[in-house]
Amino acid sequence: MIQEKHAYDNYGIHYPNSRKVYVAGSRSDIRVPFREIKLHGDTENLRLYDVTGAYTDPSCEIDLKQGLPAIRSAWIAERGDIEEHASGVEILSNSEKAFHGLQRKPLRAKDGKSVTQLTYARQGIITPEMEFVAIHEKVEPEFVRDEVAAGRAVIPLNINHPEAEPMVIGRKFRTKINANIGNSALGSSIEEEVDKMQWAITWGADTVMDLSTGADIHDTREWIVRNSPTPIGTVPLYQALKKIDDNADDLSWELYRDTLIEQAEQGIDYFTIHAGVLRKDIPAAKARKLGIVSRGGSIMAKWMLDNNQENFLYTRFREICEIMRAYDITFSLGDGMRPGCIADANDEAQMSELRTLGELTKIAWEQGCQVMVEGPGHVPLDKIKINMDKQMEECFEAPFYTLGPLVTDCAVGYDHINSAIGGAVIGWYGTSMLCYVTPKEHLGLPNREDVKEGVIVHKIAAHAADLAKGVAGAMDRDEAMRKARGEFRWEDQYNLSFDPQRAREYRLASLPPEERDQADQHYCSMCGERYCSMRISEEIRQSATGQGLSEDEALTQGMQE
Amino acid sequence: MIQEKHAYDNYGIHYPNSRKVYVAGSRSDIRVPFREIKLHGDTENLRLYDVTGAYTDPSCEIDLKQGLPAIRSAWIAERGDIEEHASGVEILSNSEKAFHGLQRKPLRAKDGKSVTQLTYARQGIITPEMEFVAIHEKVEPEFVRDEVAAGRAVIPLNINHPEAEPMVIGRKFRTKINANIGNSALGSSIEEEVDKMQWAITWGADTVMDLSTGADIHDTREWIVRNSPTPIGTVPLYQALKKIDDNADDLSWELYRDTLIEQAEQGIDYFTIHAGVLRKDIPAAKARKLGIVSRGGSIMAKWMLDNNQENFLYTRFREICEIMRAYDITFSLGDGMRPGCIADANDEAQMSELRTLGELTKIAWEQGCQVMVEGPGHVPLDKIKINMDKQMEECFEAPFYTLGPLVTDCAVGYDHINSAIGGAVIGWYGTSMLCYVTPKEHLGLPNREDVKEGVIVHKIAAHAADLAKGVAGAMDRDEAMRKARGEFRWEDQYNLSFDPQRAREYRLASLPPEERDQADQHYCSMCGERYCSMRISEEIRQSATGQGLSEDEALTQGMQE
Repeated sequence: MIQEKHAYDNYGIHYPNSRKVYVAGSRSDIRVPFREIKLHGDTENLRLYDVTGAYTDPSCEIDLKQGLPAIRSAWIAERGDIEEHASGVEILSNSEKAFHGLQRKPLRAKDGKSVTQLTYARQGIITPEMEFVAIHEKVEPEFVRDEVAAGRAVIPLNINHPEAEPMVIGRKFRTKINANIGNSALGSSIEEEVDKMQWAITWGADTVMDLSTGADIHDTREWIVRNSPTPIGTVPLYQALKKIDDNADDLSWELYRDTLIEQAEQGIDYFTIHAGVLRKDIPAAKARKLGIVSRGGSIMAKWMLDNNQENFLYTRFREICEIMRAYDITFSLGDGMRPGCIADANDEAQMSELRTLGELTKIAWEQGCQVMVEGPGHVPLDKIKINMDKQMEECFEAPFYTLGPLVTDCAVGYDHINSAIGGAVIGWYGTSMLCYVTPKEHLGLPNREDVKEGVIVHKIAAHAADLAKGVAGAMDRDEAMRKARGEFRWEDQYNLSFDPQRAREYRLASLPPEERDQADQHYCSMCGERYCSMRISEEIRQSATGQGLSEDEALTQGMQE
Repeated sequence: MIQEKHAYDNYGIHYPNSRKVYVAGSRSDIRVPFREIKLHGDTENLRLYDVTGAYTDPSCEIDLKQGLPAIRSAWIAERGDIEEHASGVEILSNSEKAFHGLQRKPLRAKDGKSVTQLTYARQGIITPEMEFVAIHEKVEPEFVRDEVAAGRAVIPLNINHPEAEPMVIGRKFRTKINANIGNSALGSSIEEEVDKMQWAITWGADTVMDLSTGADIHDTREWIVRNSPTPIGTVPLYQALKKIDDNADDLSWELYRDTLIEQAEQGIDYFTIHAGVLRKDIPAAKARKLGIVSRGGSIMAKWMLDNNQENFLYTRFREICEIMRAYDITFSLGDGMRPGCIADANDEAQMSELRTLGELTKIAWEQGCQVMVEGPGHVPLDKIKINMDKQMEECFEAPFYTLGPLVTDCAVGYDHINSAIGGAVIGWYGTSMLCYVTPKEHLGLPNREDVKEGVIVHKIAAHAADLAKGVAGAMDRDEAMRKARGEFRWEDQYNLSFDPQRAREYRLASLPPEERDQADQHYCSMCGERYCSMRISEEIRQSATGQGLSEDEALTQGMQE
């Protein structure tokens, strides 16, 4: 099954003793990547789900100016339902910063065609994309197809982002995490954002949202999409506003539509669309303790009030669906009414919007579009379950994609941990993707270290959810770690962790300098040598077997005693 | 009610704009401390539960060589049921490192008397200690007495630790957290350990366990106890072993008993005692994936095997009870069989021990002793509830005191977050105290920064649990934060957080240098000025009131529209 073998150094300093391996599918161009960790002792090497794309494949030459290889182009083309078509919508590109690499003509569905994975799944087709994710998730392709057909899972893949590796978001699969990047009016450059994307993927982000609101939005996004092996999401409203110099009064359906098309042609895989913020819910939002804390939600609410009109994202929803299905862009129905404080959790504003999102989910499905639904926000532990259950009920099991939830309002500076607590719990209850929160939440934009920290703690939360849900393969990593721990294989323990460098550093820092070169000794510095419970446990085990008893006999004898 | 007013600078750089206030009880020597945060705008100052003792009271002079003021001496003496009594057990003190400060004669219950808070509560007495904690927890004294009498809560206070401020551990009260400190064979000094204790308290540790296994155990402990305003716990087995040079073969009841008495006379408030590790359970422990990971548990298991005898902590349990009640030391029944990996969670070894701990709880209660029960360990999210429920059932609602649980085995380097996830969940389900885990768990001994990090993330977990349980007063802090956030009071947001310095630093770091002196502007650097959802929300609110409508009318009008 494995097609190539590299040395165990493909992942650089971040993941020592790891190499890239591919598992082949039914056709030669389905090559599903895993990170294989070399383990010692009497233990099989462990293969982990991998999202790092060509960056860790030594046979690929990386040239950011050319973008990543377009691994899906053939799959998209051979279905015969697309055509090259440039809409000619106006784009604002800064020629100095523009992406001058590989320029393809934008693809679009042929007239009247739906090119979504949902449409194919409903037709009973197992696409190469479905087979790819099935291998990655260690399940059968038919299962992927059925989950997608039922709307319980999405494969967010724009036909104009052939560089992306297929991945699935649904509660019966590995819980995914998203990392937000993006410049703001207050700073950061294209280079920084591309670097943040790569960095987020290095630590395991399954998707990346570009939330840029500052300069060079179009060009920043182009560089990110061309170089991203994971799906990219955006909130198109931010760019639409930017085009009118942040003057919400000038916002119009036409401007917004053109922005959708501009981003669709670039290859954005999912759009957050705040179509559920309705006029009827504004009084409930005003009545709440902290109003509307979603940027998109508050902008649309203000627009409705100022213009005395219903939300055009709602009234034009069918037209939006037509755009989405022509490129296979997945809806991420925005939760403009998400609670921004514990006191507002699960209130009427939130629940009313959720019902609207359910209604929109149905419409989008009728139109052949893939849908996920965004969720809160700030929710105390005791209200998470009902929130999850309501979402499943009101939105017919469309995948839930939550920000946090944060389980207290007071963890400023530690909100990534706050979010990991709520995220692990809601993931266990059924959320399909967690949006990461960084230590800078509520305070400012994350830097590189914050992005890493945010990704890793949410990876831990998602993994905890997967263990609790019994997701295929999740337990393998814990079993390998448990075994390495019991056998004092320190190197293996580092390498099985989410951050091998940190684990190693921490251990070495707590050893006296003269012992650092014997760091593989059979005890840790917590208990010291003589108190080591692991060693004593091993002695106890051997004391029985030493008496010439098998494990079973020892048990029986122990029982009789 | 408030007896003294200081300037808002009692808590130094860690908590700016905070001062110490005392609320008086029914007698002048009941003075219950709170940390009052000065807030701005149209907002009452917030009073938080305080554990920092005399260290933050500017009217107290701190002299570590003399120890803290003995605030409880009169309460203890006036009950007339104690006497001065030095047992004369041999102690190993290093005269150079000994605590030469205030030397009191050890106190002990008069012959046949039980001087425990449980005994008083059962007699219907509301002790000053109970009143103190009632004021601190914002509940009625009768409620505290009844919870203690029922065994659902403990007030761990050795009569030889009059320096400690009373506190209660029980699931109907604020969830507590414990910080472990202690030197090991591999390093750290008395000064470092005392400093770690103070440091842990600074960040909010409700109790501190001294788990020293290295040099100068007796003297280290003496310095810690004399200077600690919070209860101190230990695992006496560690010192007993140390006395025989770690040679478990020489372990005996007499040696152990003398160690209990030595520590009882010093004033240790609760003892972890691994009396539930029985011979009958060893086969089940051997059968598990990772054996016995508790130090105390593994030592006792090995002793039983080597000596072919039942655990003397179990066979001598009634004698131990007699010691405990003569000083009012609370049992913390150790979970020697706690699972050390996800695969072993809730297995037969653990459950069998839990049943034994329930049996021992009953015996201890019969003897008038206070009891809490220790819990795991490594437990996946889906097995936490059953673990909590089993503990309540098998141990008759005696307070549960858990280590974590860790919800995955793989979070090395991030195990404090791993533990905060499990801790928040089990706290919500009913655990009374969480034992902190630091980022160095499984790797080495924590340093100062690790202690802080460990305490704060568990404070967040405990607070999340309290919000979910609806503990008295828990929501006040979130309400204050919510209001400060809505009103852009940045200073107040920092000061309401668990780590004001970090919150401030993070915000300033994300502002352009030229804006740092206007850091109180009405937006944050995440969205920038024009996109600020909070500001837009405020505009929406004002847009209605600006039309000359009251909030209610605006609502109604909005509804009709």
